[in-house]
Amino acid sequence: MAATPEPNQPSSHGEPDPTVVARAREIVEGVRSGNRTLLGQAITLIESNAPKHTPLAEEVVRQAIPYAGHSIRVGITGVPGAGKSTFIEALGCMLCREGTRVAVLAVDPSSSLSHGSILGDKTRMEMLCREENCFIRPSPSSGTLGGVTRKSRETILLCEAAGYDVILVETVGVGQSETTVRSMVDFFLVLLIAGAGDELQGIKKGIIELADTILITKADGSNIPRTEAARVEFARVLHYLTSTTPGWRPQVLTCSSVENKGIREAWEVVERFRDTMLKSGQFEQRRRRQTLDWMEDMLSQQLWHNFTHNPGTLAVWPHIEHEVLEGKLSATTAVKHLFKAYTHHDQ
Amino acid sequence: MAATPEPNQPSSHGEPDPTVVARAREIVEGVRSGNRTLLGQAITLIESNAPKHTPLAEEVVRQAIPYAGHSIRVGITGVPGAGKSTFIEALGCMLCREGTRVAVLAVDPSSSLSHGSILGDKTRMEMLCREENCFIRPSPSSGTLGGVTRKSRETILLCEAAGYDVILVETVGVGQSETTVRSMVDFFLVLLIAGAGDELQGIKKGIIELADTILITKADGSNIPRTEAARVEFARVLHYLTSTTPGWRPQVLTCSSVENKGIREAWEVVERFRDTMLKSGQFEQRRRRQTLDWMEDMLSQQLWHNFTHNPGTLAVWPHIEHEVLEGKLSATTAVKHLFKAYTHHDQ
Repeated sequence: MAATPEPNQPSSHGEPDPTVVARAREIVEGVRSGNRTLLGQAITLIESNAPKHTPLAEEVVRQAIPYAGHSIRVGITGVPGAGKSTFIEALGCMLCREGTRVAVLAVDPSSSLSHGSILGDKTRMEMLCREENCFIRPSPSSGTLGGVTRKSRETILLCEAAGYDVILVETVGVGQSETTVRSMVDFFLVLLIAGAGDELQGIKKGIIELADTILITKADGSNIPRTEAARVEFARVLHYLTSTTPGWRPQVLTCSSVENKGIREAWEVVERFRDTMLKSGQFEQRRRRQTLDWMEDMLSQQLWHNFTHNPGTLAVWPHIEHEVLEGKLSATTAVKHLFKAYTHHDQ
Repeated sequence: MAATPEPNQPSSHGEPDPTVVARAREIVEGVRSGNRTLLGQAITLIESNAPKHTPLAEEVVRQAIPYAGHSIRVGITGVPGAGKSTFIEALGCMLCREGTRVAVLAVDPSSSLSHGSILGDKTRMEMLCREENCFIRPSPSSGTLGGVTRKSRETILLCEAAGYDVILVETVGVGQSETTVRSMVDFFLVLLIAGAGDELQGIKKGIIELADTILITKADGSNIPRTEAARVEFARVLHYLTSTTPGWRPQVLTCSSVENKGIREAWEVVERFRDTMLKSGQFEQRRRRQTLDWMEDMLSQQLWHNFTHNPGTLAVWPHIEHEVLEGKLSATTAVKHLFKAYTHHDQ
């Protein structure tokens, strides 16, 4: 086992290469000292799919973990056009100017499709980019949802080790990514726009139910009556839905990012949430649960991948699936046959 | 391979015992001829956890499948007190008297807890019990959710082979069972009661979103204004939620089971749904998807069970989980270690 002079050094299950350990220590120390370029490079390393990068990436995460965890993680979602970037810029600038260190990340599993990448263009947050206390990371390169998830979680840990107090995780409110982001943050904020009703149909099933707070954006000028009506409407909808966080009743607020109205009020809700959850012990409890869920999700995905890529099961799968669909084989019996094929190959 | 004179006989992957095949044929023929006692016994056989019953149970299902599928499967949920039994009795009696054959089943994974069993007492549906065209099956004995699911699905198949045209699957609206039931039926009906608002808080997150139709019960006497207000309210809520069935906009209706009002109207919605879905091809498509999902769910559960009960992983699991929770090990690395322990034991 390599020498481990660091405090809280994890016990090792493998035997990491001493050069890798030393190089990882350099990176983690640089990241902790506030070097944003190094942080960016470390994230790129973690996002790399190249097997040759894996040992160093894993060692960096391993060494960073003891310094991570001391932030509030906030997920922010909303349909395209809901004003996510403008809101994040307004919120981020406010926090940075008060001395809070803010990291902005994006989870965008759909970027490989036609939805376009979010945060791909940093100029969308021109003012926030110039803040010394801010770190903005565009969405990771396309990949499987599982891959993006793993990388996003580890990116959060790295940003925390780098001393960021607030981690904002942005996602597009059009797909599966919301549940994924919900599972890695403490607080989930859903941005909505007031509209003629039909526009709201774009909100995916279940997203509203994930919200710890709903924020109706663009509450400015002649739009104010509509945002107020939407606020009342959504408060009514929330009334019928069980809160995603026990002990917390989701709020509905309005804001104007361009006029800088309601931004502080929105953030005060996040702070009240954190205080309430810390006091009840739920904050820590949820994070522990999230970590274990994450581990179990990865295990399940790996097991499923191994099973469905096993030559034994692959050989019989199409025939068995066909027989099940034709009603010639019960699903229960099909499962038995598939396991027989899997086991036989294994032995 | 045993002789298989039946039409549509499945090709066999194993070599079933000829005695078992013959005994299963007797049972399936009896069930198909309308023998309700035999149907009840066959379901008990399927629900049995005794390994000695497994070959016969599997063979019965295998032989029944070619005759199954010709029904409309309707899931019915609602919080305790929503009037599920009364509604099912009113609906069931109406259908039976028109010559429709109705089977009433229950999925109740919580019966082993303190929630009490649903349909445990047939006298709750006294009139329906006396109908010649009706078959009522109380909830299966307690077990894992997965076990109950498998058995409920196979019970549906058996009832269909027995010639029942309508399968009503009842579940208590307080837990995980709704998603399970949704995945085995064509149409999902959610019963709600109008109340002072707070009573409605008992509805679990997500249940409303599963509904193909919401039915507000107890629309009689002085309660009518409240049910009407609730109808308008829920129509509003549904407006903001994406339909669980593409091409179908969930309805909100009211009914009075004791006054027999709105029962026919509710059923007409089910029939309209079936016609629409049959025409668009979605009916068959969803059933095929459900069957494959069921098979994949069982596979996943089995894989997870094997992995978590493997002596190799069991030996290291507590230590690894502890290190992950203490922040000494990343979840990604933990997954690697667990797989190493699993593989080592297998070889």
